[in-house]
Amino acid sequence: MTFKPVIAIHGGAGAITRSAMSPEKELEYRSALTFIVTAGQSILAAGGSALDAVTEAVRLLEENPLFNAGKGAVFTNSGTNELDASIMDGATLKAGAVAGVSHIRNPILAAREVMEHSDHVMFIGEGAEDFAKSRGVEMVESDYYFTTPRYEQWQRALLEQNGVMLDHDAASLASQPQGDPIDPDKKFGTVGAVALDIRGNLAAATSTGGMTNKKVGRVGDSPIIGAGCYANNRTVAVSATGTGEMFIRAVAAYDVSALMEYGGLSLEAAANKVVMEKLPAIDGNGGIIAIDNKGNVAMPFNTEGMYRGVAKVGQAASVDIYR
Amino acid sequence: MTFKPVIAIHGGAGAITRSAMSPEKELEYRSALTFIVTAGQSILAAGGSALDAVTEAVRLLEENPLFNAGKGAVFTNSGTNELDASIMDGATLKAGAVAGVSHIRNPILAAREVMEHSDHVMFIGEGAEDFAKSRGVEMVESDYYFTTPRYEQWQRALLEQNGVMLDHDAASLASQPQGDPIDPDKKFGTVGAVALDIRGNLAAATSTGGMTNKKVGRVGDSPIIGAGCYANNRTVAVSATGTGEMFIRAVAAYDVSALMEYGGLSLEAAANKVVMEKLPAIDGNGGIIAIDNKGNVAMPFNTEGMYRGVAKVGQAASVDIYR
Repeated sequence: MTFKPVIAIHGGAGAITRSAMSPEKELEYRSALTFIVTAGQSILAAGGSALDAVTEAVRLLEENPLFNAGKGAVFTNSGTNELDASIMDGATLKAGAVAGVSHIRNPILAAREVMEHSDHVMFIGEGAEDFAKSRGVEMVESDYYFTTPRYEQWQRALLEQNGVMLDHDAASLASQPQGDPIDPDKKFGTVGAVALDIRGNLAAATSTGGMTNKKVGRVGDSPIIGAGCYANNRTVAVSATGTGEMFIRAVAAYDVSALMEYGGLSLEAAANKVVMEKLPAIDGNGGIIAIDNKGNVAMPFNTEGMYRGVAKVGQAASVDIYR
Repeated sequence: MTFKPVIAIHGGAGAITRSAMSPEKELEYRSALTFIVTAGQSILAAGGSALDAVTEAVRLLEENPLFNAGKGAVFTNSGTNELDASIMDGATLKAGAVAGVSHIRNPILAAREVMEHSDHVMFIGEGAEDFAKSRGVEMVESDYYFTTPRYEQWQRALLEQNGVMLDHDAASLASQPQGDPIDPDKKFGTVGAVALDIRGNLAAATSTGGMTNKKVGRVGDSPIIGAGCYANNRTVAVSATGTGEMFIRAVAAYDVSALMEYGGLSLEAAANKVVMEKLPAIDGNGGIIAIDNKGNVAMPFNTEGMYRGVAKVGQAASVDIYR
């Protein structure tokens, strides 16, 4: 039996409003999403694995400074960058994750090395960097992640923290062409990918730069298997983005799988239940992308927007930002 | 409606064999388990919360050098100690966790501070220590955790790693009265507690020193909400111990809850399915302690033994080690 391969990606969910987004910025996001989801689609079309497709899609999202992961990561309250990533293979339930790393160019590649070449699932901090280095993963100086928009975003957050209120109305945001239209206030963002390959294998990958001005050492859901990332050939592959704390408390990614496997829900019903009911019940904001083992796709979010794209092999890619 | 309060604790699961355990050592473990589970029981009997009972039980387990958490934590391959802990409140689904800390006397108290006095769920490394310090949690020099048996265990592991095979037969182990009867080869251990209080609230807490001679930065399931710790008043409180990587991949603690809530399984059936079927299917060894919202208790393990104790308010405590 062969399967109809499909990939979906996201570049973060949050208070993305049309009025705060310049036409030029919107085109930039749409172009980037189209390019990246198409790159993953090509891997699947050539018979590549879901694991390779999600790895490459997330690597490209990390490379793109528009998104809060890899280059373009947000700053902590100490002015550092701390990145987290995770990956899971639905065929074997193997998984890998790194958290709190500051010298790895592509955290998702480090997570995959952890999955495939260690006896462990999760490494944090310098230990994660030492392991990645020993596996030949590209290391960078910590200024590699620097981008001016993220730096300015951090400076604005610092001012706010110090009691200086900023004007965050739409006109002000639209007048900041260097600014980031996502979550000027809520300050989260993540990237991720899920895929089904021709052999019926599912995979999920998630990566983030964390929250702007977050306390050093804070870890959200992105590197937590079951919260921000989950894949299981019996059910579904899920990558999440949003207020990470609530996604951890809700065990959000695995909950979609459990609702399908034990509760008999369809992908759509399970994904909606988690994103539209269970997360809001604990003030969780964000969304997920999910593909089940039949190739159905669900991308619900309870925020104003979510950068997202989907591409079935043999069909044109489709990308979107708003509801 | 009032509930019949109950607490259960564990001090790690693994290859604990009668033949490797001296009668004196066994008595030491039984006495410690009885003392600690009774301390938790007293809190519940006085109308205290499940959260307070599991916090105090895990704090006492951390204080006791017999168990691999807090004082008596195992050594990493660099000769350091890296500790992880987590706690979850079944009434609110709030949770707190710290990972990779080396200067906090009681990681469980730091995890509770994260839950109750930060906007976050998880802190790692120095950021976790800085937060704990800011909250007045007791800090220690890293030599605080040192115990001779754990140091010798690490030295043996180093020799093994360097190709020096050691005689691990029962007689040899029995002749090491300073040694640790748990997992001379497999080298894992964790502590934890779960409780139901008189108001029907569930709570779970887990803490560990990690694996002997583990790579620096490796994190297991203990600080991962949904894997090593989970509590939800709708279903169950769970604390896990075992080969942490497989517990993460299985989302083991939350899986018990999901099997009950969505699959309609009883506590016993759900706990057994996870520990006796789902974990072994991915080579996961260990066990869990679990209490459901009706006060039922399950403590399945798929290893030779698990240090454990249970105490209902108004009844004598019961502790056990083997099957």
